[in-house]
Amino acid sequence: MTGGAVVGREVQPVAYPRGRVRPADFRVVEVPVREPGPGEVLVRNTWTSVDAALRLRLRETSPPGYFPAFPLKQPLDGVMTVGEVVASRADGFAPGDTVWHAAGWRDYAVVEAGRPALGGVGTLRRLDAGAAPAQAYLGALGANGLTAYAGLVHVAGLRPGDVVWVSAAAGCVGSLVAQIAKIRGHRVVGSAGSDEKVRYLLDDLGLDAAFNYTAGPLPDLLRRAAPDGIDVYFDNVGGDHLQAAIGALRPGGRVAICGMISQYEVEQPAPGPDNLMLAVTKSLTIRGFRASGLTHLLPEMMSEVGGRLRCPETIVEGLANAPAALAGLLRGDNIGKTLVRIDSA
Amino acid sequence: MTGGAVVGREVQPVAYPRGRVRPADFRVVEVPVREPGPGEVLVRNTWTSVDAALRLRLRETSPPGYFPAFPLKQPLDGVMTVGEVVASRADGFAPGDTVWHAAGWRDYAVVEAGRPALGGVGTLRRLDAGAAPAQAYLGALGANGLTAYAGLVHVAGLRPGDVVWVSAAAGCVGSLVAQIAKIRGHRVVGSAGSDEKVRYLLDDLGLDAAFNYTAGPLPDLLRRAAPDGIDVYFDNVGGDHLQAAIGALRPGGRVAICGMISQYEVEQPAPGPDNLMLAVTKSLTIRGFRASGLTHLLPEMMSEVGGRLRCPETIVEGLANAPAALAGLLRGDNIGKTLVRIDSA
Repeated sequence: MTGGAVVGREVQPVAYPRGRVRPADFRVVEVPVREPGPGEVLVRNTWTSVDAALRLRLRETSPPGYFPAFPLKQPLDGVMTVGEVVASRADGFAPGDTVWHAAGWRDYAVVEAGRPALGGVGTLRRLDAGAAPAQAYLGALGANGLTAYAGLVHVAGLRPGDVVWVSAAAGCVGSLVAQIAKIRGHRVVGSAGSDEKVRYLLDDLGLDAAFNYTAGPLPDLLRRAAPDGIDVYFDNVGGDHLQAAIGALRPGGRVAICGMISQYEVEQPAPGPDNLMLAVTKSLTIRGFRASGLTHLLPEMMSEVGGRLRCPETIVEGLANAPAALAGLLRGDNIGKTLVRIDSA
Repeated sequence: MTGGAVVGREVQPVAYPRGRVRPADFRVVEVPVREPGPGEVLVRNTWTSVDAALRLRLRETSPPGYFPAFPLKQPLDGVMTVGEVVASRADGFAPGDTVWHAAGWRDYAVVEAGRPALGGVGTLRRLDAGAAPAQAYLGALGANGLTAYAGLVHVAGLRPGDVVWVSAAAGCVGSLVAQIAKIRGHRVVGSAGSDEKVRYLLDDLGLDAAFNYTAGPLPDLLRRAAPDGIDVYFDNVGGDHLQAAIGALRPGGRVAICGMISQYEVEQPAPGPDNLMLAVTKSLTIRGFRASGLTHLLPEMMSEVGGRLRCPETIVEGLANAPAALAGLLRGDNIGKTLVRIDSA
């Protein structure tokens, strides 16, 4: 890595998807890799994250309050990635270190140490490579674990005895929420979009109940899984799922809205729940949140549950397949964490 | 009041209204007034409250979690009322005492001391008749004051510097919310359904901005009144008002949903806000609440703001006109607290 003649590759959007993400909305380009300047490190990325929420930035304007839209024909700044430091001019980082940062969907990245990224959660950070495989820091031990823990414990304010429903429970965040709730002794209901996922929820995660939301009217399915109602709903889906939750929540119930995957690829936003009056009569709390604002909870998450969480992995080989991986994730194809293993030399 | 030959009158629903409340949905019946038994007092009611939320109980089944539906051809149990004790067999109550209780829409009531009513807020209570006119305990100094204070300060978690929007701001609860926010030094925007109400908000309450929501697209009107956005929305209306608030809230913003008067008389619930994804991107909190669950805050409300709140009164004369008063309130005819002065002998 001396001499500066290294060529890197990066995935760039070339058009904002209409409706479904298509691989043709992206390109892979070769770019020269520059030497790190003072305070910077050069990282060879090994794994890069694929997250549903990327879809919110693949549009002309991202939703108010959110991270800005990804510019076209630029690399995606703000995607969690792990890799190995190959050159460092920053204190505290040395070649061979395993790190995470937010300059993903490319094989080499020059990252400035200490520069906040993704609201803090993506700031360059040295990882304990002996404690877990590097890619675990993109899932259970990283932003997804923080999202699950902070959302369930702090945003939803989990209390002893709460019955918990988590949607998209076979996804990485959802499965982590379910695991944390089980560790804490709760009755946990999970939902997902296929029978295979439901089997995973019941057999692998040991949930108390699980259902395939495509199998019938959602309120009926939920009632069967939680006949006495629920106290907490961890929302990854929005739409009819949120409406069903509001119907099923008991007085004092709480919703933590993490995401609304049902809404990410629609051209027109769907109407919201028509039963919000129940928030008054049942004294419900509905809170949206972003893990990027809750980075201070990362040590608490790691110490309380970090070592006990696992996330199955859907691994896609090769940087060029990252767009297809995102499309598959948004279609609901994947179980657990969707990862791209980078095939850099 | 000895001898037991007193005849009382009470207003009873005879049919559940379809859409708008009509006086013909009620009747006034004469009933014998019994002597109080042990632990009971007999109250001659002087003022009885008219509240939008009564509409939620004038139906076959009330919304889940709420007080039960009012049975047909029975008096309305669970309506705030003040009156004078005329006979007492309960410790701590003597003839001549001014009291509140929840056996309203009738001229005489036998009430059991200590028996919880309306979730606690309507339990028989002796009032300081020298401190304020009796009917003030149905508005600013009673359940409405508690609703406003608890909702704004505790449910919405008012913080220094918050810009506050309150809808139905010319109603009793709304005007109290606006006053409390002004007392605490906030910038306050109020909305209402007529120019006369808007003048009241600006001229009498001294709000920083106010608008007539019928005058144009709500998001535009709100943007003009609060160009930099809002931090707290106190919702009395629901529907398009809640949607506009979610659009205008700044990151970390909070909604306290007190009621949804726009939805009380519709046959089919309207779709909810289609912009709930903003709750995620802006980390919003939306909480419904009922003052009946927050009775413990009554002393705090009284000591912090009790003496400084006032509520204009729309007074309807005579028990028989209570249904028409409710219909008028729900139509938006009234400013401030709607009260029935009872014309008992």
